[in-house]
Amino acid sequence: MTLPKSSLSQAEHTAADYYFDSYAHFGIHEEMLKDTVRTRSYQAAIMQNEFLFKDKIVLDVGCGTGILSLFAAKAGAKHVYGIERSAIAEQARQIVEDNRYQDRITIIQGKVEEVDLPVPQVDIIISEWMGYFLMYESMLDTVLYARDKWMAPGGIMMPDRCTMSLVAIEDADYRHEKIDFWDNVYGFDFSAIKRLAMQEPLVDVVDQEQVVTEACKLSTFNISDMTKSDAAFTVPFRLVASRNDYIHALVAYFDVYFTACHKLVWFSTSPKSRSTHWKQTVVYLEDTITICQGEVITGQLTCSPNKSNPRDLDISIEYSFKGKNSSAQGRQEYRMR
Amino acid sequence: MTLPKSSLSQAEHTAADYYFDSYAHFGIHEEMLKDTVRTRSYQAAIMQNEFLFKDKIVLDVGCGTGILSLFAAKAGAKHVYGIERSAIAEQARQIVEDNRYQDRITIIQGKVEEVDLPVPQVDIIISEWMGYFLMYESMLDTVLYARDKWMAPGGIMMPDRCTMSLVAIEDADYRHEKIDFWDNVYGFDFSAIKRLAMQEPLVDVVDQEQVVTEACKLSTFNISDMTKSDAAFTVPFRLVASRNDYIHALVAYFDVYFTACHKLVWFSTSPKSRSTHWKQTVVYLEDTITICQGEVITGQLTCSPNKSNPRDLDISIEYSFKGKNSSAQGRQEYRMR
Repeated sequence: MTLPKSSLSQAEHTAADYYFDSYAHFGIHEEMLKDTVRTRSYQAAIMQNEFLFKDKIVLDVGCGTGILSLFAAKAGAKHVYGIERSAIAEQARQIVEDNRYQDRITIIQGKVEEVDLPVPQVDIIISEWMGYFLMYESMLDTVLYARDKWMAPGGIMMPDRCTMSLVAIEDADYRHEKIDFWDNVYGFDFSAIKRLAMQEPLVDVVDQEQVVTEACKLSTFNISDMTKSDAAFTVPFRLVASRNDYIHALVAYFDVYFTACHKLVWFSTSPKSRSTHWKQTVVYLEDTITICQGEVITGQLTCSPNKSNPRDLDISIEYSFKGKNSSAQGRQEYRMR
Repeated sequence: MTLPKSSLSQAEHTAADYYFDSYAHFGIHEEMLKDTVRTRSYQAAIMQNEFLFKDKIVLDVGCGTGILSLFAAKAGAKHVYGIERSAIAEQARQIVEDNRYQDRITIIQGKVEEVDLPVPQVDIIISEWMGYFLMYESMLDTVLYARDKWMAPGGIMMPDRCTMSLVAIEDADYRHEKIDFWDNVYGFDFSAIKRLAMQEPLVDVVDQEQVVTEACKLSTFNISDMTKSDAAFTVPFRLVASRNDYIHALVAYFDVYFTACHKLVWFSTSPKSRSTHWKQTVVYLEDTITICQGEVITGQLTCSPNKSNPRDLDISIEYSFKGKNSSAQGRQEYRMR
């Protein structure tokens, strides 16, 4: 018996506290900091755009160890407020002092929805809020709350645009290892768990060689003016095969843009880009689709927070395919938890 | 921002519930089942020893998906009771039915300390309770509780013996990546976190080529007659270098024995054995020790549950070295959380 180490704690907290306690462990921040695609993009967006930051008031929502706040202060911000609910805020405060920014960075430990800022407005909000499948963890709600409460007219969100995209992949080997494994576990029928495994999106790195279709953009989120309800959506998709192959799964990923920069800064979590700690999100189909180059899978994808556990995401996919060598249609439900 | 997926939940539970909720997710059981060193050892200990199991009453403490209960039933047990607190018990019950063992396996969802068994005594207790560093998670307490409450005179514990051992390793590269990383994070001083990183044992796979000393056995635990208090211990160690090298860290691992078997069944989590999901536990030393073949590091290791969070482990190490090319002594405190 062994849980992943970071998911253990014995103190009598609620699970909501527990969620933030998990961010108190430095290991999670280590993984995020070592994701150089992520961190160097923020670094470029902030530090190569001093003209945006000079003498500005900046808010860093969910500042963690304070790295984005430090970037903003170094870029010339007049003052940076970093809000962080988890206990890593203590280290963030120490790091700010150790780097002699205590006069220009203030770390506030608390919930964004509950803390007071010593200023009525901020000019720029920076935040790294993106979860798996973009929306998992629903921290975007908190960023939008901060925007609506404190953002000055004409202020800048960083990032200010995200897109979500879909591709289909060949994945026979991994499907066998992750799903069909349960058919025979040391000689026993564990198919009771196979049903659970099928319903769960898998977060893993997809090899770009497995991608069988062109990418289909599902949705664009304009962080500067979207509302919380926009984070739940139903969108159509159309996936065109770029070669003859078999399709076992659909793969979602997102791209992140900082459009206010002098030169556009952006990064992608596509299987065709350098991998990030977000990896990609894979959902398996019951059917294996035998597809020919140019043939098309159509369908729609729905994503919404689970009603009983809003940090969980419900995802449903309807798809339809009629090809030369196979046809299929179905509707599948998934839950990210 | 992205937590490891399995550590998230929104329901208002206590963290103790949360601990068990984590075991409700099938992914943890998948990892344990796919650890073939672990699972095949239990399979051999049980299914190659039908003479032990025939017509016996068996208790499986923390049965998870029920795999050990199934092994025991297949080996001829009269009845197997599997106790599991987490919600995976529902799947275990379904799996038992799907494999037509519902007449001989009963899955009981609840805490070992609170449930009633329909029998006064059991003949064999099987359990896979071992955590990182053997004692992390302190599930052993629960196994000893079950033994004292239900075990028939002359009954068998499986496993019935564990040993813990220590080696020293060369680990300059990984130390640099995990510890010295914090000295300069994108140009900033994050040494506030370096202090935390030094205090935390690291669970990872150690390459056997890094092992610089002979193994030193720290302690033997006889599960059949030990008490809960034996799980906290202070033991001396003596590490003899098998080559000239540098030493950056000490590595603890454990071996597990089923001595009641016709032919001894055992497995090791040593860096020199095939790796398991327990990997090894690495603690870094402040000093780098320059050691010559035949030179000796002496010291003592103390391990005990943390007083405020008993699922956390406090580990302290005192060491002393006087060699031709360097000498060092120190005391370091670690906490597994």
